[in-house]
Amino acid sequence: MELFGVLHLDELSHGLANLSMFPYFDMAHYVVSIMALREQPGVLEVSRLSPLACWFSSMLFCFGGAVLSAIMLAEPAVAPLSNSTSVLLASMTWYLVFYCPMDLAYCCAALLPLRLVLSGMKEVTRTWKVLGGVTQAHSKYTDSLLVMIAIGWAKGAGGGLISNFEQLVRGVWKPETNELLKMSYPTKITLIGAVLFALQQTHYLPLQKHHLMLIYTLFTVVNKSRMMLTGSSVSPFAAIESTIYKTLFTGHSPYAALTAEVNKACIDKGATNGTTPTATIKGSKEKGAAGKHTPVSPVKEQSGSLKAKDESKNAETTNCKKKN
Amino acid sequence: MELFGVLHLDELSHGLANLSMFPYFDMAHYVVSIMALREQPGVLEVSRLSPLACWFSSMLFCFGGAVLSAIMLAEPAVAPLSNSTSVLLASMTWYLVFYCPMDLAYCCAALLPLRLVLSGMKEVTRTWKVLGGVTQAHSKYTDSLLVMIAIGWAKGAGGGLISNFEQLVRGVWKPETNELLKMSYPTKITLIGAVLFALQQTHYLPLQKHHLMLIYTLFTVVNKSRMMLTGSSVSPFAAIESTIYKTLFTGHSPYAALTAEVNKACIDKGATNGTTPTATIKGSKEKGAAGKHTPVSPVKEQSGSLKAKDESKNAETTNCKKKN
Amino acid sequence: MELFGVLHLDELSHGLANLSMFPYFDMAHYVVSIMALREQPGVLEVSRLSPLACWFSSMLFCFGGAVLSAIMLAEPAVAPLSNSTSVLLASMTWYLVFYCPMDLAYCCAALLPLRLVLSGMKEVTRTWKVLGGVTQAHSKYTDSLLVMIAIGWAKGAGGGLISNFEQLVRGVWKPETNELLKMSYPTKITLIGAVLFALQQTHYLPLQKHHLMLIYTLFTVVNKSRMMLTGSSVSPFAAIESTIYKTLFTGHSPYAALTAEVNKACIDKGATNGTTPTATIKGSKEKGAAGKHTPVSPVKEQSGSLKAKDESKNAETTNCKKKN
Repeated sequence: MELFGVLHLDELSHGLANLSMFPYFDMAHYVVSIMALREQPGVLEVSRLSPLACWFSSMLFCFGGAVLSAIMLAEPAVAPLSNSTSVLLASMTWYLVFYCPMDLAYCCAALLPLRLVLSGMKEVTRTWKVLGGVTQAHSKYTDSLLVMIAIGWAKGAGGGLISNFEQLVRGVWKPETNELLKMSYPTKITLIGAVLFALQQTHYLPLQKHHLMLIYTLFTVVNKSRMMLTGSSVSPFAAIESTIYKTLFTGHSPYAALTAEVNKACIDKGATNGTTPTATIKGSKEKGAAGKHTPVSPVKEQSGSLKAKDESKNAETTNCKKKN
Repeated sequence: MELFGVLHLDELSHGLANLSMFPYFDMAHYVVSIMALREQPGVLEVSRLSPLACWFSSMLFCFGGAVLSAIMLAEPAVAPLSNSTSVLLASMTWYLVFYCPMDLAYCCAALLPLRLVLSGMKEVTRTWKVLGGVTQAHSKYTDSLLVMIAIGWAKGAGGGLISNFEQLVRGVWKPETNELLKMSYPTKITLIGAVLFALQQTHYLPLQKHHLMLIYTLFTVVNKSRMMLTGSSVSPFAAIESTIYKTLFTGHSPYAALTAEVNKACIDKGATNGTTPTATIKGSKEKGAAGKHTPVSPVKEQSGSLKAKDESKNAETTNCKKKN
Repeated sequence: MELFGVLHLDELSHGLANLSMFPYFDMAHYVVSIMALREQPGVLEVSRLSPLACWFSSMLFCFGGAVLSAIMLAEPAVAPLSNSTSVLLASMTWYLVFYCPMDLAYCCAALLPLRLVLSGMKEVTRTWKVLGGVTQAHSKYTDSLLVMIAIGWAKGAGGGLISNFEQLVRGVWKPETNELLKMSYPTKITLIGAVLFALQQTHYLPLQKHHLMLIYTLFTVVNKSRMMLTGSSVSPFAAIESTIYKTLFTGHSPYAALTAEVNKACIDKGATNGTTPTATIKGSKEKGAAGKHTPVSPVKEQSGSLKAKDESKNAETTNCKKKN
């Protein structure tokens, strides 16, 4: 890549590729993950009433990717526990975020500038995890692009992909939501990363590994910072996704009416807040509710949950502000 | 076996045993499996709104047996993905069944003569899958009949056995139903096949492998065709099952009253539509509802679901007829 | 240990350490486990309507620990099935407990003196299972205390830890309860055992293995007998747990009000029936219900389930008394 030479980025990318994740970046990953857990509705109650369930949930947030990819590759699921230093670090983080006197740890880390830095550092670990997964799969299944993508994705976004079972640990069960039905931004960016690194590994993508690492890391960090600063959730891929969806998955089917409706909803939403097509599944499911059997109304439940989340966030902010 | 020699079936059975499943029979398995998925209530909505969840569900329908037996034997669950050709074939089938313009693919395959042939071919793959599972288990656990049966069954009927988790991918959760509580015909015939092949493998059954393959395949294909043509769901084992059940699992227990009631229901049903004893679990569960806690009434839900399915089938038929 | 020499306990502990669990102790474990399953609400209906689901549930009660630890260590989950003798023994037990004519087997085993002996023998198998798990983990991960504890715990209390999935086999789904959220006595004592044996294995605990086995076995057997005879469920660790909880997990957090309330409830309960802090999760969850979404009210359901269980127990007793 001439461009890298011209811009003197070669050294930077080499430097980045040789960066060690332990301990600072790993630590940032633990802090941001466990804070995300704490901000889930109902978690504070669980943390007071069953510290063990709370600890186990936190570990799944921190090491979910390693556990999921281990299960997929028939390697010991318990292996992440054998790295005592990491588990100790994650457990200390868990303790400080949930039980620190005066709630100091959480309130400090929740301050925007610090949270911005920590989130950026967490995004950097994503590159390493995805690459680790792809490389591991490559060493077992040399030619299988799909396996590489699957393991890279699982390693990078494992916490999200196993969220149904992580919630079960806390006594929460929401079968109507999962990351395959409605992908969140981190899961999506990880999938794209897994595809790119798998293509690089099999030489379909004419880029050197450290160059791709630099580009991908820069993109994830910048995008995450942008989303945090603007408070927007506009996915940078909304337009591409919409195009792919309209090209491949609509067609002139007997369900054209349904599809058109969905499309319309997508375009409407895309124009206003960049929601991707899959985001409308809730509403449309309701319309087609005759063929769908969920114990409670998902829409009602979700709006309830969102409200609760908002309230809990407000409560947090108020608490922190009062003290700061 | 003299009989095989007399009827000149020896060559036929050798010919069958040397038949390659790839690509035609595998293809038929994918088509029939994915069509079965499409006919589940609520799947069409999911297919429009989250193609990825729909694809993943389809892959579980096609490769569920391989995934389940891999997990049971601690082999990589991701291995089926490494066979790129099969995954590509199954994915193409998935695309055509769900998103083909004018819905041509589904409507064609749903025509009775073609569907009959495809279903017959799918039944043939069952023999190979069960035998593959039994052989694989035999190579690891030479003398364990139970392991052979379990793996043969899992490989042949995996899609059904993991259906709770396959449904979860699509956001559906029906804990009150599973293949162990109320076995469907395919699961039952696969279990019988696994028992027979395991007995043959350990030489308890005095038959040669290719002869058993011929007999089992003929039985499954003929029986499936009969069931499709007559629209009947009379299990050919209803009488045997009922006898075994009455001999072993009733006895003079303090629950004789309950059991008698169940038996009566079974006999009534057996006489009219051949439902096996386990088929009455729904109704009886309701009677014993005090000790059972399901979020919604299963009977209500099932009748709703059946109605919805009927409606969706009618809708399909109408759509297809209009176009043809 | 001088004390052991003085009390002539050295020979006793050596004798205990060389005791074979097969067949008598294993048998007692199967009987007590399957009787515990039978006393769950709704199981008798399932046993009449789907013997296969009932058998599979029973096997999970008997071999759940082996299955769970196998999955965690990426060993074949199907391995327990390969030990034909054990499976045959457990299956015979299952048949006798559920389908014995006149219900003789269950009624005999349910007599207090016999049940006391069987429960004591089952507690002895716990020591062997925990030690087996710890040793197995030690051979794979020499220095990892956490892995040893996890595998020892899983092997000793597997049936409880996978109870959500065992219930699913029977068509029951209670996401709001699990052993991490609200630990039962057997799970707790197994965890303590796993910690002790792991510390012994890594020489942090200055005790010989057979001495620890004697002490731990004596403690579990005596405590279990005490609990059965007095009908009390006072955990012997309630005071220690309460102290640890108050020291580590309360602090001056912004949730002091909530925590104080929980503490008060704990102290109240601890004084009356020895319930541990986690036992109050149900009630507090209800208070914090805004952020929690369970399809039905857990409190209502649990009270219903308890009532049902009581009723079913009464029914059992009546039945047995009538006949004896």
